[in-house]
Amino acid sequence: MQAASGPLILHPVQVFREIAEALQFDGEKMKKNGIFATERFFCDVYAFEPGQSQSGHRHAGSDKVYYVIQGKGEFRVDGAERTLGPGSAVFCQAGSEHAVANPGPERLALLVFMAPPPR
Amino acid sequence: MQAASGPLILHPVQVFREIAEALQFDGEKMKKNGIFATERFFCDVYAFEPGQSQSGHRHAGSDKVYYVIQGKGEFRVDGAERTLGPGSAVFCQAGSEHAVANPGPERLALLVFMAPPPR
Repeated sequence: MQAASGPLILHPVQVFREIAEALQFDGEKMKKNGIFATERFFCDVYAFEPGQSQSGHRHAGSDKVYYVIQGKGEFRVDGAERTLGPGSAVFCQAGSEHAVANPGPERLALLVFMAPPPR
Repeated sequence: MQAASGPLILHPVQVFREIAEALQFDGEKMKKNGIFATERFFCDVYAFEPGQSQSGHRHAGSDKVYYVIQGKGEFRVDGAERTLGPGSAVFCQAGSEHAVANPGPERLALLVFMAPPPR
C-alpha cells in the first residue's frame, strides 16, 4: 500500500469572525454560540430572547467576562445587581455567584469570555 | 504599640464597567486601558488614533482576542490580513504573529482579551 503523498489538509482555525453572523437565538432557552475556543479560554456569544435567563451559578476556577453587544441585561454578581446596555462589561471572578436575565423588550446579545474553560 | 482593631478595608473589585468611560486615547502612541485583570486573563480596551498601530509580535503561551468596538482596524495574523469594523472579532492563537493598525479616518477602539496574561 502506497503512502499518501498529497499535502496534509488541516481544518483551518477561523481567525476572523463576524459576531452578527454567529448570533443565533432559540425560542426554547438562551443560546450559546461558540466563537473561539482553546485550552486556555473560550469566547462565545450568548443570545437571550426577552424573558430568557441564565440562572445563578459559579465556576470554581474560571474567571468570566460578559460584554453587552445588543439589548439590556439584568446582571447579578455576588448579590450586586445592575441593568446594563451596550458597551457595559461585567466581571465574574472565579467562585462568584452570577446570573443574567433579559427583561426585554429587545433581544439581548452578550460577548462572553471565560478563562480557563471549565473542566 | 497597640494592634489596629478597625475593620480591614480591601480595595473593591470593579465588577461593572462602562467601556466608554475607560476609553482614553494618547496622541503619542496607541493606548492600553485596563478593564479587568486576574492571574488567569486580562481585559483591556486599546485605543488607536488614525495612523497609530501595534507592531507585529507574538505571545508564546497566551491566546488573544480583539473585538472591534469603534472604527476600523487593519489586522494581520500569521500573514492573513483583513480590514474590519465594529462587531468583528480576531483570534490570535498563542505563537501567532499579529499586528493591528488604524488606517483612519476614525478613531479605533478594541476590546482585548488575553489568557493567560503574559508573564
